[in-house]
Amino acid sequence: MSIPIYTFSGALAGNWRVAQMDSILGPALEPVPFLNVTSGTLTSESKTVWSLRGVVSHERYVNRTEKNLLAASSPVLGRSQDVCAALIPIKKSEAWWSLPQDERRAILEEQSQHISVGLKYVPAIARRLHHSRDLGEPFDFLTWFEFAPEHIKAFEELVTYLRTTAEWKYVVREVDLRLRRV
Amino acid sequence: MSIPIYTFSGALAGNWRVAQMDSILGPALEPVPFLNVTSGTLTSESKTVWSLRGVVSHERYVNRTEKNLLAASSPVLGRSQDVCAALIPIKKSEAWWSLPQDERRAILEEQSQHISVGLKYVPAIARRLHHSRDLGEPFDFLTWFEFAPEHIKAFEELVTYLRTTAEWKYVVREVDLRLRRV
Repeated sequence: MSIPIYTFSGALAGNWRVAQMDSILGPALEPVPFLNVTSGTLTSESKTVWSLRGVVSHERYVNRTEKNLLAASSPVLGRSQDVCAALIPIKKSEAWWSLPQDERRAILEEQSQHISVGLKYVPAIARRLHHSRDLGEPFDFLTWFEFAPEHIKAFEELVTYLRTTAEWKYVVREVDLRLRRV
Repeated sequence: MSIPIYTFSGALAGNWRVAQMDSILGPALEPVPFLNVTSGTLTSESKTVWSLRGVVSHERYVNRTEKNLLAASSPVLGRSQDVCAALIPIKKSEAWWSLPQDERRAILEEQSQHISVGLKYVPAIARRLHHSRDLGEPFDFLTWFEFAPEHIKAFEELVTYLRTTAEWKYVVREVDLRLRRV
């Protein structure tokens, strides 16, 4: 069983239209009108402006209780009402990656409540986390969210909250793409 | 700063001579007379029989105390007296990877003492862990060890111990290559 790999390509055509793209911290990505999300091996797509790859790997921080809570309430991707999406690629500092596991966990959850606050937004917001750092990619994570238009405000609240946390002090690059299903 | 990637290639010539190769569990690797260890991007090496890739990523389990102990006593690779080496590629089961972080940590250290027993063997045995699972490789880890001939017995003791642990019940494939520097 191999690890699922996904490619997010900024392109001139695609299955998601870019409604907004903001560079939150660090270098921007080149503006594109569309985003393509593909799985499997990287295909050469002539109309691609940039490509970001990530794998859906094992969970790095959740404990048993949190894993069970998430499993019970997390929705699948691709629900018909979820015509809104967000791709937020994130890179953390070397200081973060050189921390031992217990200190990273403490910052992420005990200080920042990343998991427990995130749990409040399921099942409204569907998500999938892609790990990119070990692939030598420019970002460490590609975070992907899907939700219905009535949950745009809730999603905004979630990302605004996360950006105020202790964990976010370790973020050195973040781009925020908002998308509409074509 | 990008993640260092290493390639271990079984080949007809190379910088390490294969002294012994045992398939401990699961499918064997094709027998080869030499092993090449290269860093950076994968080069096409015409004499290569097989290639395994892994990245030196952040630590997944150590806490602050363990990290500091390891940092204080871990030797560098390439010491002139370390003419012996071992490459032990390991694959763990899906059951392992679907465990939450706290349960994997408890099996690895609290039940199996992987870190604390390993600490007894530094600085005699130098090591580097390479992560492969997220790269879609056939093994999850490529564990690499270097030591002087007088520590062969100690190394044997360490791997024999690890194979008796609760953690090792999750190992589904393991090959053990012993090498001599050419």
